Amino acid sequence: MNRVFSILVFIGVPISVIGALLHWPSVLMFVIYCLTIVALASFMGRATESLAIIAGPRIGGLLNATFGNAVELIISIFSLQAGLHQVVLASLTGSVIGNLLLVAGMSFLVGGLKYKRQKFNVYDARHNSGLLIFAVFIAFVIPEVFSMNLSNGKTISLSVGISIILIILYLLALFFKLVTHRGIYQIRDENEVVDEKEEPEWSKTKAIIILALATLAVAYVSENLVHTFEAVAKSFGWSEMFIGIIIVAIVGNAAEHASAILMAYKNKMDVAVEIAFGSTLQVSMFVVPVLVLASLFFEKAMPLVFSIPEMVAMIVSVTLTIILANDGETNWFEGATMLAAYIIMGIGFFLL
Amino acid sequence: MNRVFSILVFIGVPISVIGALLHWPSVLMFVIYCLTIVALASFMGRATESLAIIAGPRIGGLLNATFGNAVELIISIFSLQAGLHQVVLASLTGSVIGNLLLVAGMSFLVGGLKYKRQKFNVYDARHNSGLLIFAVFIAFVIPEVFSMNLSNGKTISLSVGISIILIILYLLALFFKLVTHRGIYQIRDENEVVDEKEEPEWSKTKAIIILALATLAVAYVSENLVHTFEAVAKSFGWSEMFIGIIIVAIVGNAAEHASAILMAYKNKMDVAVEIAFGSTLQVSMFVVPVLVLASLFFEKAMPLVFSIPEMVAMIVSVTLTIILANDGETNWFEGATMLAAYIIMGIGFFLL
Amino acid sequence: MNRVFSILVFIGVPISVIGALLHWPSVLMFVIYCLTIVALASFMGRATESLAIIAGPRIGGLLNATFGNAVELIISIFSLQAGLHQVVLASLTGSVIGNLLLVAGMSFLVGGLKYKRQKFNVYDARHNSGLLIFAVFIAFVIPEVFSMNLSNGKTISLSVGISIILIILYLLALFFKLVTHRGIYQIRDENEVVDEKEEPEWSKTKAIIILALATLAVAYVSENLVHTFEAVAKSFGWSEMFIGIIIVAIVGNAAEHASAILMAYKNKMDVAVEIAFGSTLQVSMFVVPVLVLASLFFEKAMPLVFSIPEMVAMIVSVTLTIILANDGETNWFEGATMLAAYIIMGIGFFLL
Repeated sequence: MNRVFSILVFIGVPISVIGALLHWPSVLMFVIYCLTIVALASFMGRATESLAIIAGPRIGGLLNATFGNAVELIISIFSLQAGLHQVVLASLTGSVIGNLLLVAGMSFLVGGLKYKRQKFNVYDARHNSGLLIFAVFIAFVIPEVFSMNLSNGKTISLSVGISIILIILYLLALFFKLVTHRGIYQIRDENEVVDEKEEPEWSKTKAIIILALATLAVAYVSENLVHTFEAVAKSFGWSEMFIGIIIVAIVGNAAEHASAILMAYKNKMDVAVEIAFGSTLQVSMFVVPVLVLASLFFEKAMPLVFSIPEMVAMIVSVTLTIILANDGETNWFEGATMLAAYIIMGIGFFLL
Repeated sequence: MNRVFSILVFIGVPISVIGALLHWPSVLMFVIYCLTIVALASFMGRATESLAIIAGPRIGGLLNATFGNAVELIISIFSLQAGLHQVVLASLTGSVIGNLLLVAGMSFLVGGLKYKRQKFNVYDARHNSGLLIFAVFIAFVIPEVFSMNLSNGKTISLSVGISIILIILYLLALFFKLVTHRGIYQIRDENEVVDEKEEPEWSKTKAIIILALATLAVAYVSENLVHTFEAVAKSFGWSEMFIGIIIVAIVGNAAEHASAILMAYKNKMDVAVEIAFGSTLQVSMFVVPVLVLASLFFEKAMPLVFSIPEMVAMIVSVTLTIILANDGETNWFEGATMLAAYIIMGIGFFLL
Repeated sequence: MNRVFSILVFIGVPISVIGALLHWPSVLMFVIYCLTIVALASFMGRATESLAIIAGPRIGGLLNATFGNAVELIISIFSLQAGLHQVVLASLTGSVIGNLLLVAGMSFLVGGLKYKRQKFNVYDARHNSGLLIFAVFIAFVIPEVFSMNLSNGKTISLSVGISIILIILYLLALFFKLVTHRGIYQIRDENEVVDEKEEPEWSKTKAIIILALATLAVAYVSENLVHTFEAVAKSFGWSEMFIGIIIVAIVGNAAEHASAILMAYKNKMDVAVEIAFGSTLQVSMFVVPVLVLASLFFEKAMPLVFSIPEMVAMIVSVTLTIILANDGETNWFEGATMLAAYIIMGIGFFLL
């Protein structure tokens, strides 16, 4: 798998540059950009992982929590610069429902086809549930509803206030998890073999260089990718919302997607669930508010106000996931239910 | 009880025919039709039960899952044919909230007056909760919200797509419950006496004949029933929505209602809960989508779009039920709470 | 603390009278009235507590359940009389979200800073969750949604019907808790020292006299308080909604607030949670319906219809609280999450 990604990077990046300079057709470039980003994201993931192991669990957790969705953040900043607020919010929505329903759903299904019942840490699940409800039901819903009776200026004030609170709470959550309550809610599995001490794949210097280069490359490709959306939308008859919610979200999360499924297949459900839920929380409590604050420096500030279908899709995805996950057990049918929910939303956004 | 129903059938069916031919007053016929259907439904239930015992648990489960709400299905198809989309959706809404709040609520109350605490299988409850959320919060809510921005044609496409997914997931749920995970989540109660092997009430042939005849009779009576709605609505000052949601739902579910309460009274809460929840899931994941698909063959296709009050009533009923039931325990007060919720909705739909 | 309140009462009440007679500036009087009410409420709380101990657990529970939110009730009746329906509903909303998010949140945070994990009775929490869902999701949401399609007269009928059901269910809940299921769901903590028999602070006669006098004084001060709202709103640029939801709610609940935090700090989470949740239920299942029924005797009947932002704020507060509390455990981060949610809503209502 890693070799495939390596080849993809070494072919994809130069072709992206050449294609962009020679103005190759947008649809072709869209495909090339997407594949290249997926491969680059896997490099970024491996570099972050190595650094996290070297830095120890606390700083490592912080690193993972910050760089884990760097690709989405980068794509979104270029969309923001291009004034495509709708695409930004759509891709963040897509990231939330994609991580919850597609990534977790596929993990539950694949893992469940091999094991009858799979368990994960129910305390972590509940901790994540609380944060999901906070982020989606409160931080996203309140501006949605209140903005109907607010002027634009006040909506921006509310969005900025909420964004700051989101980031503070996100940092407090890290502090809670990595410092004050580290290991407190650990469930010791008696049959568990103590994990061999993990070895970093790359040295510190190598990892930093790779991370820096891959980030630069992602930034370059992302900027070009954003400008193909309009042409692709026309060619395939897709709405920009569908591109944002389904396509960009799948591309941006492909790396997480692959590792979560692999972990589920190895019956390491704690890790699989952490990837899917952790990534959702990162997007909604860190990437979204950072983008709202960043937008203050661009031409037009972006309010934290999703479209009604986006908001509803996120609310029901969170509700379904919490109801299914709150018992700390999964099986193939729970995965199938989540995938069915994802397909329904996909059809809905496609028709919209 | 069975004898009462026998007498009711042997008097009700001929009187229904005679009354219809002689054009007796609509309100009188409405009452006669309702009573006859209740009695016929009990015959269908007993025939299905016998066949299920003969066929063994797997095919039996499938039989129960298909014929359990045959009466609703038949009444609805005639309403569909008469173009009464509103009545169809109203009676399905009524079936969902009636099974959840009235049937389960009454069971919890009656059982709870005899026993302080009653328990049921918490795994089954959680499995059902997930499906309820899927059906009501996702499969029903998404077209509700998205259709506001969709053309009629696209709303029908979305409805058809979702209906197909609902039916597939319903079949997968049966497969999960009857095949891959049969007995896996069983909680062995130590005090439980092993059930004597069940004897079917009727032989295979007799059961099939009775099922066929009763189904035909229900079909005949239902068709006539549907045509009395308008007159009854006028006479009593009821809205058609109230007839659909409260009256038709109570008639269509009277048989389930009686057996659930009986089971609760015998402290067999697993069975009582399964009847109430199972019936709700059958309606929402099988009857509703089958009707949407069937409507494609009639003059006007029926979109899967409930009215706002119906949608809200279903959402809050599901939420209350899940919060109350998810701990696998009941008492009389939980039953009283559910009945209070049902009465509030009844008043609401009456005034509407 | 008690001494401070005593001094505050003996200074605050006469100054309130003098200031009102001499027409001191509204903003100054607003502050004096608020402080005086907080101090009087603490006296009422101590008197009720003494009477409850003397009367034994059953009548005591009833007393607490009736007088616990007497201050809110009194302030609201004067607002009702002044025709300020918006302020009434706003202060009740504020009481619900304030008790759930601010009082409980602060208790969890303060308690959690001292103890890593705090536990409370999970059965009580689930019982309260069911009632919260019933009150907010059903009794408040149904008139909200149905009233959109109802005439004013029918909305009042629905409101009256629901109010009667709410009061009946509230009484049934007391009957359940104090009579039929008293002590059934108690979790015996092995390390718990058996509580010494509680001694009432005041004798029966003294408690009744103090309760009567304090109630009269609260009534007098509240009536004056209500008439300062308009001037205060103008002076500070606050909306009347903000005054009702945030300021009045904090004043009306200051006493509960203080004792809940104190209990959490002593690791008596059962009591802290009971104060916060019990107070919310009292407001939503007793104070609200009593006010709706009382409004029938005033000039204009008050429908049980909150504004959309109020309704949404209550729904999401209940959801977050249930998800966080349903496991019977708390920590500082759960408290921080609830406070963050409260701040977001505060900003929202401030900007509105």
